[in-house]
Amino acid sequence: MIIQTLKGFRDFLPKDAKKREYVISTLKKVFESYGFEPLETPSLEYEEVLSGKYGEEGDKLMYKFEDNGKRKVALRYDQTVPLARVVAQYQNDLPMPFKRYQIQNVWRAENTQKGRYREFLQCDIDTVGSPSLRADAEIIVCALECVKKLGFKNVKVLINDRSVFNKLKPAYVSAIDKLEKIGKENVIKELVEKGMDKTSAEKLINSFDDNKPVPDVSTLFEDLEKLGLEKNKDFVFKASLARGLNYYTSTIFEIVSEDYPYGSLAGGGRYDNLIGIFAGKPIPAVGISFGFDRVIEAMEELNLFPAGLSVTRVLVTNTDENKAIELVNELRKNDINAEIYLEEKDLEKQLKYADKKDIPFSIIFDKDKLILKDMIRRTQEILTLEEIIKKIK
Amino acid sequence: MIIQTLKGFRDFLPKDAKKREYVISTLKKVFESYGFEPLETPSLEYEEVLSGKYGEEGDKLMYKFEDNGKRKVALRYDQTVPLARVVAQYQNDLPMPFKRYQIQNVWRAENTQKGRYREFLQCDIDTVGSPSLRADAEIIVCALECVKKLGFKNVKVLINDRSVFNKLKPAYVSAIDKLEKIGKENVIKELVEKGMDKTSAEKLINSFDDNKPVPDVSTLFEDLEKLGLEKNKDFVFKASLARGLNYYTSTIFEIVSEDYPYGSLAGGGRYDNLIGIFAGKPIPAVGISFGFDRVIEAMEELNLFPAGLSVTRVLVTNTDENKAIELVNELRKNDINAEIYLEEKDLEKQLKYADKKDIPFSIIFDKDKLILKDMIRRTQEILTLEEIIKKIK
Repeated sequence: MIIQTLKGFRDFLPKDAKKREYVISTLKKVFESYGFEPLETPSLEYEEVLSGKYGEEGDKLMYKFEDNGKRKVALRYDQTVPLARVVAQYQNDLPMPFKRYQIQNVWRAENTQKGRYREFLQCDIDTVGSPSLRADAEIIVCALECVKKLGFKNVKVLINDRSVFNKLKPAYVSAIDKLEKIGKENVIKELVEKGMDKTSAEKLINSFDDNKPVPDVSTLFEDLEKLGLEKNKDFVFKASLARGLNYYTSTIFEIVSEDYPYGSLAGGGRYDNLIGIFAGKPIPAVGISFGFDRVIEAMEELNLFPAGLSVTRVLVTNTDENKAIELVNELRKNDINAEIYLEEKDLEKQLKYADKKDIPFSIIFDKDKLILKDMIRRTQEILTLEEIIKKIK
Repeated sequence: MIIQTLKGFRDFLPKDAKKREYVISTLKKVFESYGFEPLETPSLEYEEVLSGKYGEEGDKLMYKFEDNGKRKVALRYDQTVPLARVVAQYQNDLPMPFKRYQIQNVWRAENTQKGRYREFLQCDIDTVGSPSLRADAEIIVCALECVKKLGFKNVKVLINDRSVFNKLKPAYVSAIDKLEKIGKENVIKELVEKGMDKTSAEKLINSFDDNKPVPDVSTLFEDLEKLGLEKNKDFVFKASLARGLNYYTSTIFEIVSEDYPYGSLAGGGRYDNLIGIFAGKPIPAVGISFGFDRVIEAMEELNLFPAGLSVTRVLVTNTDENKAIELVNELRKNDINAEIYLEEKDLEKQLKYADKKDIPFSIIFDKDKLILKDMIRRTQEILTLEEIIKKIK
C-alpha cells in the first residue's frame, strides 16, 4: 500500500503547522488594521474561467480535469483571476473600493526539481476600484509593516514605474529584471541575443544608473512619507526593477531584506487592465503578494520564530489519576492551556512526551505536594497550586 | 464568458468570510487549550491512498483524475484517512498519543439538490494512540466547551456505546438512528422491511426505553464529572444513538442544542480499527468532527454572531487629503484598525462605504475640528484626537 504524499505536495506536522499559523495570524492582524477584509473563493472553477489568463505556461501547469458531470474544471492557479470573477459577479454587493485579503492554496504542476511546490499558500492583499496612488501607498505601508511585525530587520521597499518598460518586448524586460543578479554585461549580452542592437542595449542599461523617479512615483513617495516611511531607508527608487509578470501597468514594488539576499519577501504593483476582464470594463487595481514559503524559510534561517510556539503551557503528569484530572480541570479554569497525560505510564515517558511537544512546564505529584518542573531550564521546585498558576500564566 | 462558480462550490464574501474566521479562531483557541496541535495534509493524494476507504458511496463521490504525469490522484475526501497515512508515515516523529486538530476543505461530488456542498470545511480533533477512556472524556469536554464558547445555550452531549450494535447489520443500525425523527412504529416497520422478524424488532426498540449505560460508559461518565460536567444536564446516555458511520468501535457521541433541533452540531466516537490500516497494526483513536456549515447556519438562526465583526474600527473620511492621511497614520500608531477613504469623493458616498463595511465609526473634518460620527446610533460630536482615541479604542 502506498504510504506517501505526491511529489510537490507536503504534510505539515504540528511543529511546522504552528509556524505557518503564526505567520498567517500575524499577517491577518496587520491586513485587518488597514481595513482589508477576508475573501474566500472555491478551489475548483470552470476551466474556462481560468484558462487563457496566465499565458501558455500557465495553461500548461494548470491542474485540469473533467468532473463526474463531464464539466471541464481546474484547480485555482492564483488568487487574482478568481478575484476578477468575484468583482464581476457581485458588482453591486461589494463596497468600492474593494479591499480584500485572501490566504488560500493554489496548485501548479511545476517542475519540483527546482525546489518548487505543486500546492502552496498565497497571501495577497489587493485594492480594487481605485486609481488613486494612495491605494498603492497603503498597500506598500501595510506590507512593510507585515514583514517588520514578523521580525525582519533591514527591510526596504524597492519601487519603480513599469510603464517605462511598456514599449519593450517582454523578453527584454525579463532580461532587465536580472540586472542585480548577473550584472550589466550579461544583461546587455542577453538583450542583444534576444534581438536588440548593441548601442540601444547599452544606452538602456546605462540609463538605470541615473535612477531618477518618474513623476507618478514622486507623488507616491510623498504619500509614503506622510504615512511615516523614510525615503532611502524604508523605500528606494530602483529604475531597473522590472518584475516578471507583464500585467503590471505602472507602480511595481518588492520588499527585500538585506539579511536574506535570496529573493524578495513580497512583490506587487498596479495592474489596471486585468480585474475588468470579466466585468467588461476597465477596473483599476493594486496589490501585493507574499512569498509564503520563502518568508517561512527566511524566518527559519534568521531565527525569527518565537521560542514558545507550543500550544500547551503545562503537562500534568499522570501518576495519580484522580488528582491529575482534577488539577488539569482547575488549570484550564484559570485560562491555562493544560494537558493531562492520558495513561498511567512511567514518569520518564511522560516527560519525554512534554519535550517532544515543546511543552515548557510539567507538574509532577509527590504525595500531597506538587512539583513544578521547568522543562527548558531542567529545574524543579515544590509549589502550591496558587504559586504554580501565578508562575506559568 | 462564464462568470459563475461551479454548482456546490461557494464564494465567501467578506461578510460571510468574517463569520467563518470567527468560528474557526474560537474553535482553534479551545482546541489548543486542551493540547491539540494543528496538522495540515495535502489537498491531493494518490488515489490509492483514499480509494476503498469510504465504501462504494465514497468511491463514487470522490473527485478523481489523472495528473499531467499520468498519476492517478484524488482530492481529500475527509481528514481521517489522511491522518491514518500521516500516523503511519511519521511514526517515530510524532508524540504519542498524537493529539491533533485539522481544519481543511474536503471535496465530495454530492447531490447538491439536498442543500449539500461539494467543497466544505471540516473541523476535527482526534487523539491517536491511546485506548484510555480519558481520551474520550477529554474530546467530549473540549467539544462541549467549543459550542459553549460560540454562544450556544441548552447544549448537551448524547453518549452511547456502539459495540451494542456490532452484531447488527449496518442497515438495521441506520434504521435505529432514525428513532428520534420518525418514531418507534416506523423504525420497527423499516427493520422488518430490511429483514428482521417483527418480534425481535419490537424487543430491540423497546429495549432502548431502559436506557441503562453499559459499564464502559459508566467509567467515562465518572471522568466527565471529574472534568466538571454535570450528568443529565451536560451529558446523557442515549441507548438508541447509532451514528451513520460504521467504523466506530465503542463510545459514540453527538452534541445537540435544544434551541436548534435540525441536527447535531458535532459528532464523533472511538474508532480503534481505522487509523492502523496504513501502519499495519491496531492503533486506537477517538475524535469528534464539527459540522461547520451547520454550526454557521445555527449561529445565524440563533443570532449568536457578535455585532462587531467589522475589521475596521474607524473610517477617516477624505475631504482634506493631507490631514486625512496623517490622522489615519496616528490612529494606527495607537493600535486602532483605521481606514482612509481612498479618493476625495463627496462625503455621503464615503459614509455609505462605511455602512457597507459595517464600520462603527467615521471621522469627518470640519475646518480645524474633528467630528466623530457613531455609524450605528447615527449621532455625532466634536472631539479632540485624544478623546476620539479613548472613545473608540
